[in-house]
Amino acid sequence: MKAKSNDVVTVCLRGAGQVFFMESALAGCLFIVAIAYASHETAQWSTTAGAVFGLVVATLAALWLNHDQAATRSGLYGFNGMLTGLALATFVAPSPSLWFSIALGAAVSTVATGAFAAVLTKTRGIPGSTGPFVLIAWLMLAGIGAVGPPNAASVVLLPGHPASAYLGGVAPIPAADELLQIFFRNIAQVFLLESAVSGAIILLGIVFASWRAAVAAAAGSAVAMICALVLQMDPVMVMRGLYGFSPVLTAMAVGVVFLRTSVRVAAYALLATVATVCVQAAFNVLMAPIGLPVLTAPYVLVMYLFVAAKPIFFLAVGGTDSMHKTSPHA
Amino acid sequence: MKAKSNDVVTVCLRGAGQVFFMESALAGCLFIVAIAYASHETAQWSTTAGAVFGLVVATLAALWLNHDQAATRSGLYGFNGMLTGLALATFVAPSPSLWFSIALGAAVSTVATGAFAAVLTKTRGIPGSTGPFVLIAWLMLAGIGAVGPPNAASVVLLPGHPASAYLGGVAPIPAADELLQIFFRNIAQVFLLESAVSGAIILLGIVFASWRAAVAAAAGSAVAMICALVLQMDPVMVMRGLYGFSPVLTAMAVGVVFLRTSVRVAAYALLATVATVCVQAAFNVLMAPIGLPVLTAPYVLVMYLFVAAKPIFFLAVGGTDSMHKTSPHA
Amino acid sequence: MKAKSNDVVTVCLRGAGQVFFMESALAGCLFIVAIAYASHETAQWSTTAGAVFGLVVATLAALWLNHDQAATRSGLYGFNGMLTGLALATFVAPSPSLWFSIALGAAVSTVATGAFAAVLTKTRGIPGSTGPFVLIAWLMLAGIGAVGPPNAASVVLLPGHPASAYLGGVAPIPAADELLQIFFRNIAQVFLLESAVSGAIILLGIVFASWRAAVAAAAGSAVAMICALVLQMDPVMVMRGLYGFSPVLTAMAVGVVFLRTSVRVAAYALLATVATVCVQAAFNVLMAPIGLPVLTAPYVLVMYLFVAAKPIFFLAVGGTDSMHKTSPHA
Repeated sequence: MKAKSNDVVTVCLRGAGQVFFMESALAGCLFIVAIAYASHETAQWSTTAGAVFGLVVATLAALWLNHDQAATRSGLYGFNGMLTGLALATFVAPSPSLWFSIALGAAVSTVATGAFAAVLTKTRGIPGSTGPFVLIAWLMLAGIGAVGPPNAASVVLLPGHPASAYLGGVAPIPAADELLQIFFRNIAQVFLLESAVSGAIILLGIVFASWRAAVAAAAGSAVAMICALVLQMDPVMVMRGLYGFSPVLTAMAVGVVFLRTSVRVAAYALLATVATVCVQAAFNVLMAPIGLPVLTAPYVLVMYLFVAAKPIFFLAVGGTDSMHKTSPHA
Repeated sequence: MKAKSNDVVTVCLRGAGQVFFMESALAGCLFIVAIAYASHETAQWSTTAGAVFGLVVATLAALWLNHDQAATRSGLYGFNGMLTGLALATFVAPSPSLWFSIALGAAVSTVATGAFAAVLTKTRGIPGSTGPFVLIAWLMLAGIGAVGPPNAASVVLLPGHPASAYLGGVAPIPAADELLQIFFRNIAQVFLLESAVSGAIILLGIVFASWRAAVAAAAGSAVAMICALVLQMDPVMVMRGLYGFSPVLTAMAVGVVFLRTSVRVAAYALLATVATVCVQAAFNVLMAPIGLPVLTAPYVLVMYLFVAAKPIFFLAVGGTDSMHKTSPHA
Repeated sequence: MKAKSNDVVTVCLRGAGQVFFMESALAGCLFIVAIAYASHETAQWSTTAGAVFGLVVATLAALWLNHDQAATRSGLYGFNGMLTGLALATFVAPSPSLWFSIALGAAVSTVATGAFAAVLTKTRGIPGSTGPFVLIAWLMLAGIGAVGPPNAASVVLLPGHPASAYLGGVAPIPAADELLQIFFRNIAQVFLLESAVSGAIILLGIVFASWRAAVAAAAGSAVAMICALVLQMDPVMVMRGLYGFSPVLTAMAVGVVFLRTSVRVAAYALLATVATVCVQAAFNVLMAPIGLPVLTAPYVLVMYLFVAAKPIFFLAVGGTDSMHKTSPHA
């Protein structure tokens, strides 16, 4: 993996890495291990299969449509398909129509990634990021009639916390071990996983690819946790990591990936991260009657605003950043 | 009609033709005949009157605002007003407020068409197409309080099929004559018509203007029908042609009108057409609680994505196409 | 105030003035007086406090992010924060979380104003205007769980009209004094105020800054009133001024501020103003199940369409206008 390899497997693994902005096959490999670990915990392997299937279909669609472009080789046309497959397999029980939906959704996610790159990235400098995933997964879930609570089998309802004082409403603050679980679940939920161990594996993968990105992810998780506790959000949702996954992505994107890190950018990213927690609360309220999951929509909305405003507020920084030189993000 | 005539009537007829992308007064004439035929079948003439009134108001508004531009003469400022008039008259019973709504909606549709041309077409190369119609018709219908099932009188509830095995849930596949009806209704429903004969007249109009566009329309209708049957969509909606009209437009737009036809483009259009069927299913679910009709929103969304991605995936094709040289689509 | 002063207080007052497009600290001062007058009437001072707090936070955030730009000094980064603070304090009872929401929402409104300026204004010439306010206020209200009827104490339920023949459904037209009240409430409701006296104070402030803008505001209020009566909108909402505030802004924006006034532009603005009344009716219907207030969304949508179409329909007018030379509107 030293000399830049461009075989399909490596390109797919880079696609997995790009969910957390990492153009790294090793990170992508660890992310898939994290998903598999959660499947092992829940004995629900369709989520891992769906993620891999979506990743492969989206990557092959990109290679067919776009065979020689650097962006495809960087994995930028794979991660939205992977998340689409993962989300569909999380909310829909295994069936032929699930696999058809994943194949169709992943292929269309590649087209949507191209559309977002052409409209948002080329002239505006706004990365499409997981926007295509949110759009396509919502449409496929609604189209398949999966409007309601998730496929129960894929959710671990907080095992081992039957006697939590925090969940029971007795203590306003979780116990130390619960705080640690929330910290890692905030990261794991980017992949719709409830396993704290999976979150730790993911963070390890980010560390291997970029220690600064890992610091941002950890800081985002901590800030989100503190906000959710101070603002007294619903304890069950806090414990499941559902207030933290979008802020983790916001902290990484605004603090490290799409702006050049500085004290001023760190303050800007902190504002964005806190805003993402509140936008998550808003989407929880607004999406509940529709019956669709929020996915990473709060991250996408807040990141688009904060990155779109970059030319106004961070003129000296320049339009490109070192991390995504070969990407439609640049 | 040999020498390019620019009197108001011809411009209006071209506007009718543009609903199916045809800059042809003859095609537009046949489309109006198709609408009139459906009015004759249902004895509900307000739909034909609404379509013509909307077409005339929108065209006059464009001539006032935009008097000498080629796009107006091509009919590109008429079709959204025509569809707005048709949709309002389909869902609202005749009354003074219906005609006021059509006049206002058609005039505003011209402004919206200009806005979409300025924002989407000029720099992005994305045609506004029926996007302004969907936006304005939704707002006018909600504003007039027409949130609910359509004006019953304008809908033929599948006459002559009381004993259908398919509709009765006994057979998974419609009979041969039913398949033919679905094939033509898929085309007729672009104008919100349930008459298969109207669909045949419309297809005839397209053939006169462009045989390639007619092949794409027919292929789109067939693909949509097959998808809807394989995916086991609701038989009543399939029979009424409600899963087919957006895919017909998608197949024409992506396969012939806005990209240069090739094997690769045909595969791209096939993907888009199948995706439109699923997006139609999604909008059916998402719009039901709001009580507004889906209109051509699934086509608009899918076409925007697939055409927006054109510069990424079809670089060699170039930005313009022969069919819309004088249009804001170019 | 003769020599252009740039101290924070003056910049804040200009921000207040910009709610009605006036880069005038004197106008801004009178607008705050109008808000205070309504607080005096209702004995609910949290609205005034919220407006001022939001204005200050948004302006300070802009000075921090954007310290030397002309747009900030013109007050263009203040008005969205002011409206956010006012709206939150109108719909949420005073509490620590109200003030936290206002601070966060106002700071984020500054970022959103920058994002809208970069995406809409720079290349499209479409002003962001109150778009950021609508977006952020909706998200903060939903996030704080304020989905439902407004904080009762801040609403005067039409004092002194217990025996109105119009409200009672007996007369189709309000009495002369009621018409006058509606005329001024249509202006006051831009600040979510129900006081006719506040509306008069606001109109006075506009007169001081620009008599043409004041004529447009008055005409917009009158047109909206006539439309709402002719279209027989709900009498209670008409009396409260809820059909008029968005049209007032549309008339000013399309007729005077963003296009160069002429007979043709006046007709264009009239169409836009009438359309805004209908779009207000549509949003009333569409937002009711969500439980969020409509705010100035109808103005924002209609104005974006009519100003976006400017390069298509008003080529000779040019891209800039004299009123906003130093603004992101230009």
